Amino acid sequence: MAQQHLDPTDPTAEAVTGDALAGYLRAQATEFLRALRLHRERGGNGTGGPARGYAAAVGAEESVDAARALRRSARRISGSLHTFRPLLDPGWSEEMRPELAWLSGTLGLEHAYEARLERLLLALHRLSGASALPAQTVDALTAGGRTAGASAVTAAPEHTGGPAGPAPAERGSLTVGAAKAGALLERQLTLARTRAHSTALQALGSSRFHAVADRVAVLASEVALTPAAPATGLHPFAAAAEERLTDAVAALPLITAGHPYNAEALVHGLSPDPSPHPQDGPWHQVRLLLRLHRYAREVLHGGEAPLDVRLLSAGQALNRHRDASEAAAAAAQAARTPRITPATAYALGVLHADQRHEVEAARFAFQQAWQRQPVDVP
Amino acid sequence: MAQQHLDPTDPTAEAVTGDALAGYLRAQATEFLRALRLHRERGGNGTGGPARGYAAAVGAEESVDAARALRRSARRISGSLHTFRPLLDPGWSEEMRPELAWLSGTLGLEHAYEARLERLLLALHRLSGASALPAQTVDALTAGGRTAGASAVTAAPEHTGGPAGPAPAERGSLTVGAAKAGALLERQLTLARTRAHSTALQALGSSRFHAVADRVAVLASEVALTPAAPATGLHPFAAAAEERLTDAVAALPLITAGHPYNAEALVHGLSPDPSPHPQDGPWHQVRLLLRLHRYAREVLHGGEAPLDVRLLSAGQALNRHRDASEAAAAAAQAARTPRITPATAYALGVLHADQRHEVEAARFAFQQAWQRQPVDVP
Repeated sequence: MAQQHLDPTDPTAEAVTGDALAGYLRAQATEFLRALRLHRERGGNGTGGPARGYAAAVGAEESVDAARALRRSARRISGSLHTFRPLLDPGWSEEMRPELAWLSGTLGLEHAYEARLERLLLALHRLSGASALPAQTVDALTAGGRTAGASAVTAAPEHTGGPAGPAPAERGSLTVGAAKAGALLERQLTLARTRAHSTALQALGSSRFHAVADRVAVLASEVALTPAAPATGLHPFAAAAEERLTDAVAALPLITAGHPYNAEALVHGLSPDPSPHPQDGPWHQVRLLLRLHRYAREVLHGGEAPLDVRLLSAGQALNRHRDASEAAAAAAQAARTPRITPATAYALGVLHADQRHEVEAARFAFQQAWQRQPVDVP
Repeated sequence: MAQQHLDPTDPTAEAVTGDALAGYLRAQATEFLRALRLHRERGGNGTGGPARGYAAAVGAEESVDAARALRRSARRISGSLHTFRPLLDPGWSEEMRPELAWLSGTLGLEHAYEARLERLLLALHRLSGASALPAQTVDALTAGGRTAGASAVTAAPEHTGGPAGPAPAERGSLTVGAAKAGALLERQLTLARTRAHSTALQALGSSRFHAVADRVAVLASEVALTPAAPATGLHPFAAAAEERLTDAVAALPLITAGHPYNAEALVHGLSPDPSPHPQDGPWHQVRLLLRLHRYAREVLHGGEAPLDVRLLSAGQALNRHRDASEAAAAAAQAARTPRITPATAYALGVLHADQRHEVEAARFAFQQAWQRQPVDVP
């Protein structure tokens, strides 16, 4: 069934060779360099000084988008180097992959903390029965999300300060416990985000990064394929990547996940085990394998793979799973802060359980998406 | 669809008249008196003295069963008086119903507290990742369930004491917070149960109870029907009861309930609203109407109605909904205890959210059961 995603019936499928891989890598490398240039122009490198107001916000937004594009192409280059390893000069690709992983990991952290805080604050408002989220909060969250790139640089002091975030007005719909929990999470995750931003800036200025950028610049002009690669078919390698995915999915507890309210995700919710929960690991692994499969499809289709609703919704479910898992861990972590009030701890406990149920809901959504037949695909 | 439960196709259906109602009421009244006699013989009236050991446990178990049987017949008499009101001497039945409601309510409280504690302790163990519940705990819980009738009388002091309940060994699999939360709930709910037990004993010794018992004794011999009743068909009254049920069900948010993980039950989980959640009300109401419908079917079928899987599973889902709703409220209530530690409050927050998701799961189960066609009925 899953094999059909590679269109084995497609007569041209086998015709796709190493040349297509080289073309894909060149295109991704070019995209990487374009994003890097944009990021530098937009003051994302932190040397833009304390720009303020609308212009700063726009610049910041573009800088965030540029960083996202950088990660996007870095992931695709790294993934392709992995899937089609035998077709590439081993020394070269093996050296490059960890560097690309380091880069996208470093650049992704800030956004991750930001999204986690957003998810947790929205959940707190939902749990507080705030029928609709106060407009102010939405603005605050959106602004927080958008201007993070610059704000952490131009306004880091305010952000790393005490109980920052939503004004009292926005706490109106919250109980004391929920409000305090929100302020605590805001403080901790904003601090983490600010540190991640500084780390990212240092990374972008480091010689290590410049070495990666130089390698990618070379990749944009010439891809070091093995002598036989240009004429070698890509299909078997892409099929192997998909097989690794389907094997990993087969190992997931999908029967349980397919039964709503199985209460699996919250088991260990109060155990002394370290979070994130070990039970989440296999799902995170499938998420990465699904991504590699998607990239392999892109290579086979010369950059733009046809939309596969099944893969798309399955991937979205796994992203939601990852986000909820990390948000739940953040709530549990915050509950270990010394000297918090019982009301705050109670709210964090409810929040943790809520996010663990989001984890369970995401597994159900994945199971539902995965069992769909590819005939669903337009 | 739902009408089919009354078998309108059954030619004898219309033939069931007030005589059948009188027979049903007499039978239930006799059952009530039998249970009352058993309850008194088994020391359930609390004058049995401090009996100990196996004999006491057996006596206690029988006394608990007797109390359950008392409530069972009291509910059926009261429900039938309500559904078939027009066929009965109004003054007589109108006076009797509130007294029966008071009785079954008073006798039911002790068991309710006991079941709530059992549910919460089991949930705490599940949330602590206790792969299997320690045998000791199961014993403790079962014993607690079985000997409650006597224990509250013969061993109340121990129960109302400090952190009673599961021995340290059983707490092994729990974190400090979970263990403390369990001890706190045990203390509070055991105290409530003990008080409920004393109240029940006082009620059984009261002149008010003796008045009810006398009325039921009369009912066992002669039912005060209206002159026309003996020849009046019961079907329309039973149909009206079912219609009240189906109307109430139609008013439930079943579309939402049918979507797993809709996260509705936990909305307001952190709101300052009083618990139990107002959103639970309509479901509790349907639970009562479903019971009245079941009793009306029993009357039509002369005591023993044929098994209706759909009604059975729907009723079980609504019982689970009620239990989880009250357990969640108890956890939230315990979290308001002064001077608890943040770890305890956190555990109670997780527990509250877990039970609110049980509420959501029960609504989903009801929706699934209700949408079944009566063809499912054997």
